[in-house]
Amino acid sequence: MNIALDVMGGDNAPHDIVAGAILAARQFGVTVSLVGRPDVIERELARHPTRGLNLPIVPALEVIEMSDKPAEAVRTKKDSSMVVACKLVKEGEADAFVTAGNTGGALAAGILHFGRMQSIQRPALIVPFPTSRGFCLILDVGANADVKPEQLQQFGVMGSIYSRRIMGVSNPIVRILSNGEEEGKGSQLVLESTALLEQTPGIRFLGNIEARDVANHVADVVITDGFTGNVFMKGAEGIVKLAQGVLLDEIKAGPISSIGGLLVRSALRRMHRRLDDSEYGGAVLLGLSNLLVVGHGRSNTNAIRHALRVAKQLIDSRLVEEIQSDISELIDSHEALVALQR
Amino acid sequence: MNIALDVMGGDNAPHDIVAGAILAARQFGVTVSLVGRPDVIERELARHPTRGLNLPIVPALEVIEMSDKPAEAVRTKKDSSMVVACKLVKEGEADAFVTAGNTGGALAAGILHFGRMQSIQRPALIVPFPTSRGFCLILDVGANADVKPEQLQQFGVMGSIYSRRIMGVSNPIVRILSNGEEEGKGSQLVLESTALLEQTPGIRFLGNIEARDVANHVADVVITDGFTGNVFMKGAEGIVKLAQGVLLDEIKAGPISSIGGLLVRSALRRMHRRLDDSEYGGAVLLGLSNLLVVGHGRSNTNAIRHALRVAKQLIDSRLVEEIQSDISELIDSHEALVALQR
Repeated sequence: MNIALDVMGGDNAPHDIVAGAILAARQFGVTVSLVGRPDVIERELARHPTRGLNLPIVPALEVIEMSDKPAEAVRTKKDSSMVVACKLVKEGEADAFVTAGNTGGALAAGILHFGRMQSIQRPALIVPFPTSRGFCLILDVGANADVKPEQLQQFGVMGSIYSRRIMGVSNPIVRILSNGEEEGKGSQLVLESTALLEQTPGIRFLGNIEARDVANHVADVVITDGFTGNVFMKGAEGIVKLAQGVLLDEIKAGPISSIGGLLVRSALRRMHRRLDDSEYGGAVLLGLSNLLVVGHGRSNTNAIRHALRVAKQLIDSRLVEEIQSDISELIDSHEALVALQR
Repeated sequence: MNIALDVMGGDNAPHDIVAGAILAARQFGVTVSLVGRPDVIERELARHPTRGLNLPIVPALEVIEMSDKPAEAVRTKKDSSMVVACKLVKEGEADAFVTAGNTGGALAAGILHFGRMQSIQRPALIVPFPTSRGFCLILDVGANADVKPEQLQQFGVMGSIYSRRIMGVSNPIVRILSNGEEEGKGSQLVLESTALLEQTPGIRFLGNIEARDVANHVADVVITDGFTGNVFMKGAEGIVKLAQGVLLDEIKAGPISSIGGLLVRSALRRMHRRLDDSEYGGAVLLGLSNLLVVGHGRSNTNAIRHALRVAKQLIDSRLVEEIQSDISELIDSHEALVALQR
């Protein structure tokens, strides 16, 4: 197994990226192809003992920066680490592509070079979201700002497979994010998608979920369009950061609470860790012919190790083939239904 | 000044509702018409000293429950506290309606009995959202699941007036919630609304805001459709509750952090208060011919007092007339523009 890793992408590149690759190569026994500027990679590798590990260097001299316009950068920077890594996967030399760089760039590179799976209308970005019982999955969190009901239906199928195969949930509950939990509440898109999801074979669809209840784990898979999903995820990130900041300010404001603050320091750290996305790997773009894992821009060594672990799991579980087979079945059963109704 | 208060609505009705009314009548010198079952109201009033306060009882024998279907309940329960209170305002006997009951019911009652302002296409629910610098405003958070660009443009005008008049911001920054801060990022609705907002006179529109940045106060007014706004608000509420729960669990998990927990207790309480909506009054439905303030279902005495204070401010600042005049100007300037372009 060989995973192509973009060494140049992310706030902590290249240091933490290479360090994470070394950890993963040692712990999971995988080959990690380090894609980027050879001089930079060699310098980072020299800092660590790497004997016996499979860490080939694949040269790529350009970098897609955080400030680059995704679609344009992917077309013009042909020797960028993202494009070179994608081609490595497309040509069968690597089994998955992992990056912590420009998310838009990663999506654009994946869509351009990997192509969509047969019958999949739109790829969707899926991420784990912290809940009272661990994590649920939410998709799409940003690949598509506008979607159609049939696309949300496909997201339900893909999310359900991901939950079973990667999260180990045996019969995952799927719900659609809405502005109320009651049946009949929702935008036109939600109402039309609900009608489709209710008659989708192979998934356990239980209707609406209110945004407030996502953290209560009343669903294993939450489906939504990429605009709403993005607002939901980033809104949660922003308010948690504010809450932590306010709490620290309040603790520091008095001598007694300052002492208390020292005593609860490790509890605060554990809370932060439970809610922090760097602990549970990256986002995965589902619906393409090859695997793509996008880590958070601020991924550290541990987050890169996790992202590589997720990539290994995706390869091991043959996720692409699983999704392809279920989507084909869905299409067939729909065509049979339509034929019957004629 | 007379404010019609629904005594029967909310988790803590009637006790906290009447207690909040008494505080407000005393502190702000307003008349609060207590609408609901007379026996219940008289029993609650008897618990407090109320001499010299203006707290007339207006009988209404039915209640719109949290479980009722809003539109239906408003039509069939004609003697409910919500419907009776709305009629009181419509007939000019009261100047605003305040409730902590079923939000959908309150919106339905307001829309049915008050009617929209001239030229306003859709009313919008506006709420304060906690930020690093106090509060910003967000609208719509749930009155309309699907909206058109012209409606979002009107939300921008109404929100801007509210920010100036009620929050005291002299030249409020207005932004539109999107899945990225860059220009050109967004759903079709966001892109089309942006084009309109950029040429809207009298508002300081500065483009997109990412959900993550709302808490950083890079806008005084955040505009969005009621579906996305609802997901954003309720998502934030859910994750903050989870974070607080996780932190308490972690603190209680060890003897040292448990002691620390006692010492930071008041800091935790202050954090909770800064992020809690009961501290800053209710949501206001803008765009109707009369004023409607909707408190959170779990409003306590203090939250009711705040909601009545907000209602008083709205009446004092002649918000309805202000909005009516600015919207008429907007329509006129558009018509002039269209006429010029012909």
